[in-house]
Amino acid sequence: MKSFIEYSPDSDFPIENLPFGVFTSAQNHEKHIGVAIGDLILDLHVIAHLFDGPLLKSKQNVFKEQKLNEFMGLTRPYWVEARNTIQKLLDATNPTLQNDSALRQRAFVKQSEAQMHVPAEIGDYTDFYSSLHHATNVGIMFRGKDNALFPNWKHLPVGYHGRSSSIVVSGTPIHRPYGQTLPVEDADPHFGPSRLMDFELEMAAFVGGPPTQLGERITAKEAGDRIFGFALMNDWSARDIQKWEYIPLGPFTAKNLGTTISPWIVTIEALRPYIVENFPQDPTPFSYLRHDDNFNFDIKLEVDIKSEKSAVSTTVCRSNYRYMYWTAKQQLAQQTVTGCNIRPGDVLGSGTISGEASDSYGSMLELAWKGTKPIRLLTGEERKFIQDGDTVTLRGYCVDDDGVRIGFGKCEGKLLPAIPFEE
Amino acid sequence: MKSFIEYSPDSDFPIENLPFGVFTSAQNHEKHIGVAIGDLILDLHVIAHLFDGPLLKSKQNVFKEQKLNEFMGLTRPYWVEARNTIQKLLDATNPTLQNDSALRQRAFVKQSEAQMHVPAEIGDYTDFYSSLHHATNVGIMFRGKDNALFPNWKHLPVGYHGRSSSIVVSGTPIHRPYGQTLPVEDADPHFGPSRLMDFELEMAAFVGGPPTQLGERITAKEAGDRIFGFALMNDWSARDIQKWEYIPLGPFTAKNLGTTISPWIVTIEALRPYIVENFPQDPTPFSYLRHDDNFNFDIKLEVDIKSEKSAVSTTVCRSNYRYMYWTAKQQLAQQTVTGCNIRPGDVLGSGTISGEASDSYGSMLELAWKGTKPIRLLTGEERKFIQDGDTVTLRGYCVDDDGVRIGFGKCEGKLLPAIPFEE
Repeated sequence: MKSFIEYSPDSDFPIENLPFGVFTSAQNHEKHIGVAIGDLILDLHVIAHLFDGPLLKSKQNVFKEQKLNEFMGLTRPYWVEARNTIQKLLDATNPTLQNDSALRQRAFVKQSEAQMHVPAEIGDYTDFYSSLHHATNVGIMFRGKDNALFPNWKHLPVGYHGRSSSIVVSGTPIHRPYGQTLPVEDADPHFGPSRLMDFELEMAAFVGGPPTQLGERITAKEAGDRIFGFALMNDWSARDIQKWEYIPLGPFTAKNLGTTISPWIVTIEALRPYIVENFPQDPTPFSYLRHDDNFNFDIKLEVDIKSEKSAVSTTVCRSNYRYMYWTAKQQLAQQTVTGCNIRPGDVLGSGTISGEASDSYGSMLELAWKGTKPIRLLTGEERKFIQDGDTVTLRGYCVDDDGVRIGFGKCEGKLLPAIPFEE
Repeated sequence: MKSFIEYSPDSDFPIENLPFGVFTSAQNHEKHIGVAIGDLILDLHVIAHLFDGPLLKSKQNVFKEQKLNEFMGLTRPYWVEARNTIQKLLDATNPTLQNDSALRQRAFVKQSEAQMHVPAEIGDYTDFYSSLHHATNVGIMFRGKDNALFPNWKHLPVGYHGRSSSIVVSGTPIHRPYGQTLPVEDADPHFGPSRLMDFELEMAAFVGGPPTQLGERITAKEAGDRIFGFALMNDWSARDIQKWEYIPLGPFTAKNLGTTISPWIVTIEALRPYIVENFPQDPTPFSYLRHDDNFNFDIKLEVDIKSEKSAVSTTVCRSNYRYMYWTAKQQLAQQTVTGCNIRPGDVLGSGTISGEASDSYGSMLELAWKGTKPIRLLTGEERKFIQDGDTVTLRGYCVDDDGVRIGFGKCEGKLLPAIPFEE
């Protein structure tokens, strides 16, 4: 497949990818839906009339929305038709867009000149805890090797409801938060800036399909058509605040200070060539959590830290989505097992994705092992946790045997100093 | 104060109340914003042009929305002007509405002929755990008297993010959920219908004012202008599912099977005459959680259970909002302390409100003390938890020294049998 749009072989956004996002530009202050191709964005608002397939012909309005929810609220056959139409329009052999210079002028925007936005209205966001190595690492650190995993962990995808309002798009700075912590066990708590700021390397699965009704369950077998695609996610965490507040109802203000997502949603269609075997599960989960097909993906994940003092980034983590014990289908089945209704645009966070190797851990908590093994950056600086001025960048990409590479772009955020608390 | 609309002295909705809601009717399939007065609803969409005060004259469009968020997103002076305008229009001495028979015909709808809806788009819903007696009761049951309260409980309002999508309006039936439980300690988990279905007597505080930015804090001192009003809330809970799933990240599917709210939001303006002293707090909380004024309310709360077999309801709980240890201002301060942004329409759930007396406990878990002290209904039936076919009704009202009474209407839901799980 070859597009008339030129891009380098290591672009995240070849014609095989075609992820969806929402952008504004200097020419256009209204949010438009777009698709990334090379260094450009194809503005779907402008070419909505070209979606003339049997399904989308009467649904072209979904591409004129300011968010992806209406499009995501359709079903997979619509998504596939949209992808095929876009791929055809971008193909080097197709003249429709290529040779219509007036339309072409209006339909493409440089990514460098666009401002990306959170691509969908995220009605509800759930964060799971589905990487075996991550859960085991945290368990060993806090409870010892023999009690690392809680008894429920291998029976169901443990998860909790997160905060939707504080999900922001890549590039948004995050302030170090103030909060309560307990620096000395059994002493009085302390109020001040968090001292243990961390990233969490996650992926966000966006839910698609029509909304369900309260009481309706979606089993893992039925869940495949309900996952629209994936983005990268950094679930910023204040470890010291978390530790003090989370008993007994779970993480709260330690996690709602900001959650960064990458702007482009890579679809399941684009990811299909990179499907790998599911993580082996023992014990066999209950029927509602079982599905026979593979729904795991070979997505290489990396995290860079760049200190404010230097232009040099250090890759501190090399992980992979394939380390997920529970699949996104299983997460959705768990989300809905008691009848919780879902809406297109909902997000299922994977939880921190850690591999087995110590350089594949998806958080500073694990990489520097609770501060006991500081990470050395290329600049010689040491890190136990994230420092003010540090920029944290998540990247993800897939490569197949033929060398076809698709990427997720980046999920980046800079940690700014705490805003002083004035009484 | 006397209205030209007649109602009985024990009406929940006298002219002193004027709660806001959203309704449709046979005449009107589009959602309209209305205010309850006696047995009627005053349709604000129809009389939007009568909001001619200095502030609202240019904002009449907020009353033509299909939800309350735009109105809630204004500030308290706007809310006060709206209340004053409505009170004036309904006053027995005011001819504007009273004597315009054509307008009057269109502007009033019988509550019995209207369908109520969730009154706002609830972007995020947080559930707190702010009643001392409830937290203590649960603590004693599961950890014994000496460790009843966790160390953080008196230092901060413990809370967790809930599920927005599954908040439904009074009258919506709830299905008993399927889920995983651990009937025998250290044995294998079981999958089937929950056997321990419970209600939780709560109140929902609706957040108002313009949205804040990520990183912005609202201290308890600043939070007063950010609470728009209150409704009743039943946070249905599957206790057996909760017990198995909640370690270590908190309640998840045990709580997202449905949360019922009453349709009318009673404003802070209406509640002012019923303000009482805050619950004494020891230790004194950190500065961001302190406010000097009273923001506690004498709201009498009751819970009725009615079995399907009988027409007789039994009041199983008599509690009061005044038992809240943490105020809604303090809850909002905690919600935002790390910089979490808020949006008008967000909900802060109080947590189960229990008093000291054993008939004031706000859940079956406490009333029947973990099933050890079954409750006897007036029909002679016993209840340890909620049975299929039971209707649970929450009511709330305030009475002042002059006998002026305002109420919250009701928050009702019937528990239906589980929908069988078919493989």
